[in-house]
Amino acid sequence: MLFRDVTILNEYFEVEEHRYVGTRGSRIAYIGAEEPAEDYGRVVEGKGRLLMSAFFNAHGHSPMTLLRGYGENMLLQDWLNKKIFPFEDKLNGRAVYWGTLLNMAEGLKFGIVSHSDMYFFVDDMVEAVVTAGCKANISRAIAHFDDSDPWQSPRFKEVKRTFTAYDGIEEGRIRIDTGIHAEYTATPVAVKAISEFAAEHDAIMHIHISETKKEHEECKARHGKTPVQFFRDLGAFDTKVLAAHCVWLEDEDYEILKERGASVAVNTASNMKLASGSANVPRFLKEGINVAIGTDSVASNNSLNFFEEMKLFALLPKLTFGDPTAVTPRETLYAATRGGALAQGRTNTGLLKEGFDADLILLDISGPNMYPVYDMLTNLVYSMSGSDVVMTVADGVVLYENGEYRDIDVEKTAYEVKRSVDYILSQL
Amino acid sequence: MLFRDVTILNEYFEVEEHRYVGTRGSRIAYIGAEEPAEDYGRVVEGKGRLLMSAFFNAHGHSPMTLLRGYGENMLLQDWLNKKIFPFEDKLNGRAVYWGTLLNMAEGLKFGIVSHSDMYFFVDDMVEAVVTAGCKANISRAIAHFDDSDPWQSPRFKEVKRTFTAYDGIEEGRIRIDTGIHAEYTATPVAVKAISEFAAEHDAIMHIHISETKKEHEECKARHGKTPVQFFRDLGAFDTKVLAAHCVWLEDEDYEILKERGASVAVNTASNMKLASGSANVPRFLKEGINVAIGTDSVASNNSLNFFEEMKLFALLPKLTFGDPTAVTPRETLYAATRGGALAQGRTNTGLLKEGFDADLILLDISGPNMYPVYDMLTNLVYSMSGSDVVMTVADGVVLYENGEYRDIDVEKTAYEVKRSVDYILSQL
Repeated sequence: MLFRDVTILNEYFEVEEHRYVGTRGSRIAYIGAEEPAEDYGRVVEGKGRLLMSAFFNAHGHSPMTLLRGYGENMLLQDWLNKKIFPFEDKLNGRAVYWGTLLNMAEGLKFGIVSHSDMYFFVDDMVEAVVTAGCKANISRAIAHFDDSDPWQSPRFKEVKRTFTAYDGIEEGRIRIDTGIHAEYTATPVAVKAISEFAAEHDAIMHIHISETKKEHEECKARHGKTPVQFFRDLGAFDTKVLAAHCVWLEDEDYEILKERGASVAVNTASNMKLASGSANVPRFLKEGINVAIGTDSVASNNSLNFFEEMKLFALLPKLTFGDPTAVTPRETLYAATRGGALAQGRTNTGLLKEGFDADLILLDISGPNMYPVYDMLTNLVYSMSGSDVVMTVADGVVLYENGEYRDIDVEKTAYEVKRSVDYILSQL
Repeated sequence: MLFRDVTILNEYFEVEEHRYVGTRGSRIAYIGAEEPAEDYGRVVEGKGRLLMSAFFNAHGHSPMTLLRGYGENMLLQDWLNKKIFPFEDKLNGRAVYWGTLLNMAEGLKFGIVSHSDMYFFVDDMVEAVVTAGCKANISRAIAHFDDSDPWQSPRFKEVKRTFTAYDGIEEGRIRIDTGIHAEYTATPVAVKAISEFAAEHDAIMHIHISETKKEHEECKARHGKTPVQFFRDLGAFDTKVLAAHCVWLEDEDYEILKERGASVAVNTASNMKLASGSANVPRFLKEGINVAIGTDSVASNNSLNFFEEMKLFALLPKLTFGDPTAVTPRETLYAATRGGALAQGRTNTGLLKEGFDADLILLDISGPNMYPVYDMLTNLVYSMSGSDVVMTVADGVVLYENGEYRDIDVEKTAYEVKRSVDYILSQL
């Protein structure tokens, strides 16, 4: 594929106009100011368009798309106990398949090419991601409430089985991470066991950490240490950690994340909607911790609109910390692309760079909301609308273009989601 | 025009499917479950679409579109003194015309049919709104720094002249409001003079009130009272007030706004971006004060994406006041439509209701982000993307449809904006 005469956001997050970008197989083969002599196949005209790395959603629960808008305007505990948990208790694999597929369709519409995804029914999630053609790091959400041997539990067995079955399939588009749901849903014996497995297999460890003040304080009351310290002491940080939320960290926690090379997934919309708090993004950046952006599930967002998520990521810290200079557009775009790719251990993508994976989005920058242009990065973060993504490409393959999907029938998927939801509701 | 078999948000903010909506001239002539016998002209198919009232943007400064992204990541005072004010000092009428026209194009794209707009070069603003075909309540931003007779100043003369020339033209689509920029830019003699004029002419008074803590506290130090009390004591509330921001109000201020039937324009994105604070929307709602939604200028937003603005309006109070039940989707949609129309004194619009002005938007609700549907209002506020507005109608006339404008050439407008900006920058 050749993008002709297109504006690009290059690997240094600088904007260049009138560029030619060629892809060959799954890779970016050429970026230059000259039209290349070689034939790259299909030619895509770049007038009024900007080409950049696609987005990497660093924290979500795809199948919860089934629960978008289910039980709104409720207090968190009521919402979980009266709505979410009873619903999840009745879930089945087919419902998860269709919910995940709808989630992937929405992700592609908003330029997300890869998801860090924690849930259950991993086989069905994998099947949906393969159908969609995009990428995901999937972890089986582990909970373990007693001191029994974790490896005897079906959940832990599923971790081992799915890791063996799926890690690295589809030319690496599917990865299996390990994961612990959170401190309050895991006993130390379980954390230790999964941490050893992760370190041995060099698997990423995906954990909810210090999302709410309640969780953070209860952990300290229970263990005499913060969640980050609790996990560190049990070996979780002996592998690469993807720490979701991190709203209520304390000084030593930042040190640990930094020292251990962990990544943080910031979920601004969800943290606002559930009244959880405001993550200290300026501090993550100052400490040099890798920061990525997550949507969390659409049950608490309620969308995967990554432009909206970027804007919130940049705006909320300005308000919270009383500093309009906090979190620049460049830092935001980096977190949404390269920061997310690194958080997923995908080192060869997240930048528009020759030799890197062709994980790309093409944006319509010709709308009235994108003028004038003093600084295109500012316009991209604050002024762009999510639906102005015109094409999403994974490993060189066009998965989404102008509302059409290579492999997803949205109408059918929405119908099957409704059927699945109606069935589950009838069981409650 | 007849919308056939369409989903609607009716005047009670309930969703009804399979409805027929006919417009005749500038009005909504028919809403029903049956296909009408009469011929309404063009038929618009409603499958996968939702029809509702268009949005009323209750606070903005349209020509500042010229300044989108100019001087980012700066402290407020630096930004104003080093960037905004010097630029504004070099403005000219043609620049204002093109900036306003670009703003109207963006507004139509995001479903905004009418703007409460405060700035200067009112003649050129009027001309642009007339070109675009939409509606606006325009006020000349008044500042007056001494005790001289205000009516001898060119600014006050312009208020009188433009009120006479333009109030109510274009079948009422153009209205001239009065306005005072803010307490810190007006002496009591000026506030008194403009208040008398407003009361006499039954004109709306548009004022920035208690946007920042600094403004609020300095007013108290200067006058021994809050901005709301300062304006009340000088007669500003003897007419209908549209109070923009209202972030730092005190108990008595809420009472005054309520008693005097004032409207509040909440500007969440701008308040976050400039680190101004978080308006107490739950309290406005509880007190029964009319609440509307504003974008503020795109210099501090930086877009007119009203779906984004609605989401922020609903999310930020949940976080600020620690209550995920605060501000419902219904309250949000009401503020964005009917609340805004009332804030503009446009009593015959802002609802999908027979006999009301046909100020309408048609939304694409068939995207993957809009499924499943437990509650359509929730999906509209949290899950919809701004660019999924497919048609915007003012007084029965289609001004925008699928990226095309009846009367605005976006490419030419963007070019003229760039020319104007380059010229102004060359003067600095």
